[in-house]
Parts: sequence; structure tokens; C-alpha cells
Amino acid sequence: MEIQLKENERIDDLNFKGLKIIQNKEGFCFGIDSILLTDFAKHIKEHSTVIDLGTGTGIISILLCKKTKLKNIVGVEIQEEVYNMAKRSVKLNKLEDIFSLINTNIKNLKQLYNPKSFDVVVSNPPYKKINTGLTNKKEKNSISRHEIEATLEDFIEISSYLLKDKGEIYLVHRPERLVDILCIMRNYKIEPKQIRCVCPKKEKEPNLLLIKGIKNGKQFLKFEPNLYVYNEKGEYTQEILQIYNKT
Amino acid sequence: MEIQLKENERIDDLNFKGLKIIQNKEGFCFGIDSILLTDFAKHIKEHSTVIDLGTGTGIISILLCKKTKLKNIVGVEIQEEVYNMAKRSVKLNKLEDIFSLINTNIKNLKQLYNPKSFDVVVSNPPYKKINTGLTNKKEKNSISRHEIEATLEDFIEISSYLLKDKGEIYLVHRPERLVDILCIMRNYKIEPKQIRCVCPKKEKEPNLLLIKGIKNGKQFLKFEPNLYVYNEKGEYTQEILQIYNKT
Repeated sequence: MEIQLKENERIDDLNFKGLKIIQNKEGFCFGIDSILLTDFAKHIKEHSTVIDLGTGTGIISILLCKKTKLKNIVGVEIQEEVYNMAKRSVKLNKLEDIFSLINTNIKNLKQLYNPKSFDVVVSNPPYKKINTGLTNKKEKNSISRHEIEATLEDFIEISSYLLKDKGEIYLVHRPERLVDILCIMRNYKIEPKQIRCVCPKKEKEPNLLLIKGIKNGKQFLKFEPNLYVYNEKGEYTQEILQIYNKT
Repeated sequence: MEIQLKENERIDDLNFKGLKIIQNKEGFCFGIDSILLTDFAKHIKEHSTVIDLGTGTGIISILLCKKTKLKNIVGVEIQEEVYNMAKRSVKLNKLEDIFSLINTNIKNLKQLYNPKSFDVVVSNPPYKKINTGLTNKKEKNSISRHEIEATLEDFIEISSYLLKDKGEIYLVHRPERLVDILCIMRNYKIEPKQIRCVCPKKEKEPNLLLIKGIKNGKQFLKFEPNLYVYNEKGEYTQEILQIYNKT
């Protein structure tokens, strides 16, 4: 099979069951947050129908295809160039039967799907409010990082629409947005049920949060033990090595 | 000075600047949560007027009197017996000039104070919703632990009423109630600004949260580094020893 690479694109090995991914060296490449989210979501039930909102290169969906026994997954990506790259990664990994892609704004999904169409939502949404922090000059980076095309509320609202009763959402986000996340989730009938703090080291505050919510879930939040990225020697912790399949 | 002890009461040394406290062996004795809250709130501005909602034995207020340069502090306690015990602790510590007590339900405070009367609220409210968990047979314990006389929302609502613009609230609570806490705070115009997770050990999930909010504050939440109670040998960590003045 011939997969065409465009300018600045490269194929990266995911070191997991032979999976590979196409990324653009000048664009938004996946980070540890996406990898940790796939680990956090790895216990989704067999035969789940899943949607990945803002799939980007498709990293989360590609890994979930092999880490879980999901029935099928839909990746939604607004940026046409990134969507095309993800499409080629699907072919490269021969995942066409279970991983499909849509090139649209997540806000348009109500026109494409009936309510309660999915068992699971996964998402690594843009972290930053518009007009906060440095905005990247290249527009495709900005859309991945900043709430330019869709806000956190748009992501949660459409998730609530798409999820079946007791369906699950798995999110990764920044700690400074926690109040927004929890309040908006509850507002849209997705009850936050589980939080895992990701801390660079034991002495450092969390810099990422993994959050699970359940549509119409009962009110009770469970914190998981913290996930530490580096140990005291500055090396990856055993857990991180396991998640990256380096052990 | 003669301080009368009633049946089952004892005087405990707080190991800090000569402070002591009267507690009832059969009642609700202060725990690590109150001590950690006084540490979390120790940077309140000089000459602050402070109110301690649900003061119990007065532990938080008594410690804050010597850990900070507050102007004065009011402790509010609904249980008459506990209120009387706290009154005697005030005398025992000669804090009558700065620490006063009121024996009432926090819900009645609107009748006693004008809005915006305080710079700071501190509170270790009951953690459990009514009809959840084991309810203590002794009513005075139940009121301290369960939301029998006032709910979390009552505590936040009255705090918002009592706080000046940009006034601060310091709370200690259980992680499972975090969604309630953050949503209710924001609902009453108290923006959650700071969270510190208290973990028994590095490998354990947090079992207490310290939360600071600011009345009409700007939206941005900051997580602090975790506070660990025990080290890997099962001994208190240096930070806990410092908080308890054992170093």
C-alpha cells in the first residue's frame, strides 16, 4: 500500500502493536496528554461505539482501536489538512473498518447524528480560552490549542447530546480550567465521576487532569491516585514506561 | 484563672505558642483537617476580620489567633454544649479580646450582620450529605459530620453574603464533594482560586482538599503541590511535622 507523505510530514512509530501515525513537523504533534488519555480510557466496555471530538492526527482513536475492543470509533476534525493526514494514518494502520473520520466542526454534529448515538466520547479539546496565552502564528496550531472554533462548553454540550444514558466521557485538560469543566459538565447532565491528577514530579502540582464523566450519573466523585511522570532521579516513572510500552 | 471542666472533658495542649483547647472525649475532637486548614489560611492579611463557620471546639480560630495577625475572629457554633466548651477555651487562652463566639445556626447570620462584614471566612463544614454514610448515634457528632442543620450550599451562601468584595474563603472538605463545592461557589460569586490535595501517601489518592475562593474573583484555578501526610517509611513527612511544630 502506498501512503503519500506531503511536505513536512513524517511517519512516527507508536511502539504499540505496530501502530504508526503521520504527523506534520510544523504542525501540532501529539503529546503525553493524548497518550495518558488513551490509558485512562482503556477500560471502556467491549463493543462500545465511540466518538473522538477534535481527533487531530487521530492519535487517541488509533491507540484506542488496539488498546480496547471497541466496536467502532468516529474521529471529528475541523482542519481539512489535519483530517486528510489522519485519513492516511487510518489506511496506514488498516483501521478503515472501525475508525472513520468526519471533517467538520463538532458544533455541526447534531445535523449528522441523532441524540444518544454513542456509548463513549473521548476528547483532548483545546485548552485555552481565546485571547489567553500566546496564540500560535500558524492557524492550524491555534485551532488545536485555543477555543477558536469551539469552546469547552460546545464540546460538553455536543457530548451530552451524543451520549446514551449512562454513556461515558473521557477528557484530558488543564487544572486551571477545572471549575469550568465540572460546572459545565453538571450543567449538561454529565456527572463528573473520576479525576486523576497528572503531576510532573511528586513535589510539583498537577499540570494535567484526566476526567471521566457519566451522562445522568449519580453524584459522587472519586479521585484516583496521582500519576507521576518523573521520579526523583528525573527518569520516567515505572507507570509512564508501562503506558508507553517501554518496559 | 479557674476553668471548670465538665464530665468527659479534658484540656489538650496544642504545642503552639502555649495554646490549649478543651475537648470532650465522647464528642467530636478536632482532626488533622482543622490543623491543615489553619496552615492553608496562615497567609491571610494583617488586620483581617474573620469568621469561622461551624467553629466547634474553636480549634481553627484559636490557632489562627496566633498564626496570623488577624484583627478579630468570630466563631459560630450551633451546638450549645460545644459552644460553651469553646467559650471556656477562649478564656483559657486569654483570647477574649480578639476571639468572640456566637451560639446560632449559620443560616441566621443575615439577621446579625450586614452584607460584606468580613474579610475572610474559614470553615470546616460537615462533610457528609444527610442520609449518607454512617450517622453517629450521638447527635452532637452527627451535626458536626452531617449536613443536618445546614448544607454545603447554606455555608457557601452565607459566606458570599458575609464576604467583602475580593474577600477570601478557606475551606477543607472531602474530594467526593468537589463538584458540589466548585459549582456552588461559582453560583454564589465566590470563584475557586486555589486547591491543595492532601494525600495520605504518594501512592494514594487525596482524601482531603483545601480550597480557597475569592468573592468576585477572576476565573483562574491554581493547584498547589500536593501535601503528603506520611512518607514511604510510614512516618509523618517533614511538612506535616512542621505544620504540627514538631521539628
